[in-house]
Amino acid sequence: MVKENEVAGRLEWRVNMPNGSSRILAPESRETCSRLQSLVMGIVLNIKAFLDKAWNLAVNEPKKVVHCLKVGLALSLVSVFYYMRPLYDGVGGNAMWAVMTVVVVFEYTVGSTLYKCVNRAIGTCLAGSLGIGVHWVASQAGDKFEPVILQVSVFLLAAAATFSRFIPTIKARFDYGAMIFILTFSLVSVSGYRVDKLVELAHERVSTIAIGASICIFITMILCPVWAGTELHHLISNNLEKLADSLAGYAAENFSVDGSKNVHEKDSSKKLQGYKCVLNSKAAEESMANFARWEPAHGKFNFRHPWKQYLKIGASMRSCAYCIETLHGSINSNTETPEFLKKPLNDVCMRLGTTSSKVLKEMSSMIKTMKKSTKLDILVDEMNSSVEGLQNALKIFPSYQHIPTPDPGTEEAPNGTEEPSLKSTALSLMEIVQMATLTSLLVEIASRIEGIVEEVKELASQAEFRDESSMKSKQTQTKINGNDGNEHEVTMKTLQKV
Amino acid sequence: MVKENEVAGRLEWRVNMPNGSSRILAPESRETCSRLQSLVMGIVLNIKAFLDKAWNLAVNEPKKVVHCLKVGLALSLVSVFYYMRPLYDGVGGNAMWAVMTVVVVFEYTVGSTLYKCVNRAIGTCLAGSLGIGVHWVASQAGDKFEPVILQVSVFLLAAAATFSRFIPTIKARFDYGAMIFILTFSLVSVSGYRVDKLVELAHERVSTIAIGASICIFITMILCPVWAGTELHHLISNNLEKLADSLAGYAAENFSVDGSKNVHEKDSSKKLQGYKCVLNSKAAEESMANFARWEPAHGKFNFRHPWKQYLKIGASMRSCAYCIETLHGSINSNTETPEFLKKPLNDVCMRLGTTSSKVLKEMSSMIKTMKKSTKLDILVDEMNSSVEGLQNALKIFPSYQHIPTPDPGTEEAPNGTEEPSLKSTALSLMEIVQMATLTSLLVEIASRIEGIVEEVKELASQAEFRDESSMKSKQTQTKINGNDGNEHEVTMKTLQKV
Repeated sequence: MVKENEVAGRLEWRVNMPNGSSRILAPESRETCSRLQSLVMGIVLNIKAFLDKAWNLAVNEPKKVVHCLKVGLALSLVSVFYYMRPLYDGVGGNAMWAVMTVVVVFEYTVGSTLYKCVNRAIGTCLAGSLGIGVHWVASQAGDKFEPVILQVSVFLLAAAATFSRFIPTIKARFDYGAMIFILTFSLVSVSGYRVDKLVELAHERVSTIAIGASICIFITMILCPVWAGTELHHLISNNLEKLADSLAGYAAENFSVDGSKNVHEKDSSKKLQGYKCVLNSKAAEESMANFARWEPAHGKFNFRHPWKQYLKIGASMRSCAYCIETLHGSINSNTETPEFLKKPLNDVCMRLGTTSSKVLKEMSSMIKTMKKSTKLDILVDEMNSSVEGLQNALKIFPSYQHIPTPDPGTEEAPNGTEEPSLKSTALSLMEIVQMATLTSLLVEIASRIEGIVEEVKELASQAEFRDESSMKSKQTQTKINGNDGNEHEVTMKTLQKV
Repeated sequence: MVKENEVAGRLEWRVNMPNGSSRILAPESRETCSRLQSLVMGIVLNIKAFLDKAWNLAVNEPKKVVHCLKVGLALSLVSVFYYMRPLYDGVGGNAMWAVMTVVVVFEYTVGSTLYKCVNRAIGTCLAGSLGIGVHWVASQAGDKFEPVILQVSVFLLAAAATFSRFIPTIKARFDYGAMIFILTFSLVSVSGYRVDKLVELAHERVSTIAIGASICIFITMILCPVWAGTELHHLISNNLEKLADSLAGYAAENFSVDGSKNVHEKDSSKKLQGYKCVLNSKAAEESMANFARWEPAHGKFNFRHPWKQYLKIGASMRSCAYCIETLHGSINSNTETPEFLKKPLNDVCMRLGTTSSKVLKEMSSMIKTMKKSTKLDILVDEMNSSVEGLQNALKIFPSYQHIPTPDPGTEEAPNGTEEPSLKSTALSLMEIVQMATLTSLLVEIASRIEGIVEEVKELASQAEFRDESSMKSKQTQTKINGNDGNEHEVTMKTLQKV
């Protein structure tokens, strides 16, 4: 044991020996000892912090834990092929490919798993057949040219496939497929040079990959499936709610006349920052929309659910969030407007903030329930009338003469006393700037919310949201599809050009 | 050949037969014919558009083409192992693993290639040794329990490793490694059940992976290397320039008094939109900074170059871009302010816009050249004095009485004629709102630019940018490192706690 004693103003370190005596530690061994201790302490603390973080993650998102168990289950299932003699004899050493397929293909959402499965299947088949074709051509060319042809084909196709991965449309849909194409083509065309019975080998590999992929698809779709589409749907609806909370919280904090703003300080500041999630959700939205396209019909979503429309809603939400961010910034960085200036506009601003927030909330619940809302138009009208109210208030805004100045009684502002009257004018104008920015940002936010409303309405019509009077829900399904008519028209035009 | 004749106001379709006669086409065959034609046309047009896009990409970013050729070269090199009898005998059928390694590990930037190589190496070794260990334990447990132990271990470790991929710190650095860990562990522990000579097999696989990885690292670092760090550096510096152009363009478009704003209309509108790149570059910045950490010293960058600081600059740039976006939006959506109101503030706004843009430009060139700039402080001072100038101008802003109204001569505004005077007041106040928003957004942008300046200065000190009087460049290298001192202090404190 190490003990610290202060002897005559000087630190001294003692180690208690097993026999009861104690020994003074030399400075270097003290240092080593303490370093070791601090190192161990640091590691322990780090591990603890890490485990805490992991535990919180697990508690907050149990779906992710379930996903982990699903991966474990899929791997256990696929490894059965090794343990069961009859199964092993069926697929041979290639069972490895099934394991590999499960590991690389099993993703968090159904959509991304399907995306990878389909890509892997297409890439493998395409590259496999092409590889066998090239191998056949090469084998006809004689022993000398065979490796040259194979090498050149690998070089060219790998380069071309790699390049295709840079093209945005390919990257979005077939990035993984292109990689698998390169992999399979190289393996087949190169190993074909050594391995006989190439077709048989390819057949075995394809069948093991199919086994792996089908296990993945089965498990991911049956056991607590996480649909990318549903996640996107919830993300958009939650983000709308966060924007609404942000705006309502902001209005309450800045325009409320009662002292309610200090209640639940911490909770409200968290809500106020909600718009930041919207600012940063672009990448998540895009990848989810990408994967959602691969998913079959599930829950309330059809196969051709307009996922792209969610991206448009996301974009207009972000444009609104930029404005809210500026609003927060422009208020935080400046001094507060004095009460006597604030009062005339506070009520109208509060009303605009509240009605805007209500529109956002209504859209959020409209998306959440997938029902058309009759209230939405009313709320939008309310918001617009608040905007008008604000503009009217600005029009009858008390002019600067009525503002109390250090020397009152200069109501009629005679031209002779320019110096003091100018000063009081200046003060009020500077503060009008502050208040004016606030109001015009609020108006701008309202106009951007109208942009969101349009996109949400477009979604409602494309996705055939039910009317709130849910009796009519069946009528929408028998709606005549207008696309056929359009196609016909185009064909006729092409005909007439011949 | 199909011909169209108009006979008595009715369309008729004729096919010329090989024997010279012609036959009237029945409607259905016409339709089939035209459909086929439009289908082929559509496909051809699509392919042409796709090829055009690809060609443009290749012309605009030749680096990407070079990358494709590098991938082709790496695959050709690694396939040599198959064609050379002595090499093939050395690594056996496992040469496949070398090919696979090249395909999955070879990435666009050096950093991401290194990240994947290191992750693959760590993951493979860790999982391989663990797998062999588990296999040994299982083999001691007897034939009955062996598969059970293996299954359970695969299940548990796969689930745990999958979960670790959800933890942000692990995801950022070891996501790929965790996947390889699962893959290798499953393969080793499962296939170990069948394959004898497990250690030998593992050795062969590791050596082939090492061959593949070293070929990748060699090619990616020697032939036209694309460093993630350098890309990040250029991205940040370019984005600063884009912001500057956006702001300068905006100022020129809205505040310039001469007619210069219509020159190069298209070019300037592209520049005006530059801030949008900044809004959307977060994901790119983060992944580049992530990969840059894995890169060795290269060009002007040391091994411990402060890549994280670039992210901070990016964040403050984005916060500035939000404001610029709002500025653009608030102008586009409202009516223009009449000239008589604009004139008094135009000059100061123009000056503020120009000086702010100059500060951004200076920072961009400072980062580009990696030299400390003596001009920067002067430019910031200029910007701040423009802000003051703007605020002063607001203070002496002509009050609404001097604004020409439909009925002039109401300078003294007698209280009796309230109705018309209120109207003229209202007009001017509404337009003050517009102008006020503009000015206060400009001021806000300037204050956010100061935030960027601070982050850039921090980068300059952390990355030890050279002084512009480049004589002193050698002094910075011998600067005493303060970290040791800090560490010592911490140790002493820990010591005293014991």
